Amino acid sequence: MSQGRTAYDAKLESILRAAAVVFAEKGYHQASIRDIARATGVSLAGLYYYFQSKEELLFLIQHHAMSRLIAGLEPRLRYARDPREKLRILIDNHLRFFVDNMAEMKVLSHEAKSLTGEFRSHVESQKRQLTNIARQILREVEPNSTLDERVSAFALFGMMNWLYVWYRPGRDADVDRLVHDMTEIFMGGFVRSRGRNPELQLAFGTA
Amino acid sequence: MSQGRTAYDAKLESILRAAAVVFAEKGYHQASIRDIARATGVSLAGLYYYFQSKEELLFLIQHHAMSRLIAGLEPRLRYARDPREKLRILIDNHLRFFVDNMAEMKVLSHEAKSLTGEFRSHVESQKRQLTNIARQILREVEPNSTLDERVSAFALFGMMNWLYVWYRPGRDADVDRLVHDMTEIFMGGFVRSRGRNPELQLAFGTA
Repeated sequence: MSQGRTAYDAKLESILRAAAVVFAEKGYHQASIRDIARATGVSLAGLYYYFQSKEELLFLIQHHAMSRLIAGLEPRLRYARDPREKLRILIDNHLRFFVDNMAEMKVLSHEAKSLTGEFRSHVESQKRQLTNIARQILREVEPNSTLDERVSAFALFGMMNWLYVWYRPGRDADVDRLVHDMTEIFMGGFVRSRGRNPELQLAFGTA
Repeated sequence: MSQGRTAYDAKLESILRAAAVVFAEKGYHQASIRDIARATGVSLAGLYYYFQSKEELLFLIQHHAMSRLIAGLEPRLRYARDPREKLRILIDNHLRFFVDNMAEMKVLSHEAKSLTGEFRSHVESQKRQLTNIARQILREVEPNSTLDERVSAFALFGMMNWLYVWYRPGRDADVDRLVHDMTEIFMGGFVRSRGRNPELQLAFGTA
């Protein structure tokens, strides 16, 4: 971790991690600060040293996760030149982060509307930032795409973010397989057999 | 509607529809039966003629939506011979149903874990039935696919079901465009430029 990381940061991070699991399992509205105290081993008074309300805790989890996700992506993109390579990096970064932070990613999706006011608009702007990075990459990959850009970007995020509904770590495909298969599907499509595209059929002269 | 449809069925259907909107907007746990009474214009006593608990109401919404989604799909698949045509039908059926039933589809995703016991296992078995139809079609389309079947099926459903997070009816692409673009992306991939595939590049002799 960075040199500036203090004991406060480290403690906060461990609280956010444990609280994300509680919110992911019980749901934000059903979970109490008492549940969080139990899961973190920090007293109620101790917890209020780090945040002032359950909603601020939810905000910190979401903000921290989005910040880390984007902070991991940007330096990797900086050294990529080929747009398709950037798209691969985006998918790779997102899925690896997702699998390592399943609880946080579930909370980001499932409890998006549980935040209100400034908290919500801040996290929404972080999400918009990521969506805009993706849209920019899609434009670079296919400057003349006939596909709707917003539909394409959210098709990609939907494909990836749906993980929180179905993915069982340790039982399903591992993260390398996930990255490979989802990159293949989004970039090149599920259908690979010859003959899927009449023009290609003609070009190859085979069916 | 069918001839066997009674006044009871019609009334129940209109209650489920209004209740789905309340649950989609407020969240199941935050919504009260009193909210449902207000939205439907049916008294509390009147509502309990149709279901015995808030959880049974949530179950009826989810069960009814999954039944209609699958019932719309099966006859359309029966007359399709080409596997790729079946895949197109699956996507078309799912997205059109989704856009016509946004509240129900949100509740199906977002409140899946709010059901318990028999209620939950019944809806889960309906979802499994739909997933199995999709997996069967994917096997028919690509009998020798190197892609993980479960990853592929949930990539497809994720792409479509994520609609409930981002789709703004009337402002975003209409349903025909959604169907077209998502079918293109899932079947053929987002990347269309020449040169995406080194082998094709060689075959065409162009970059």
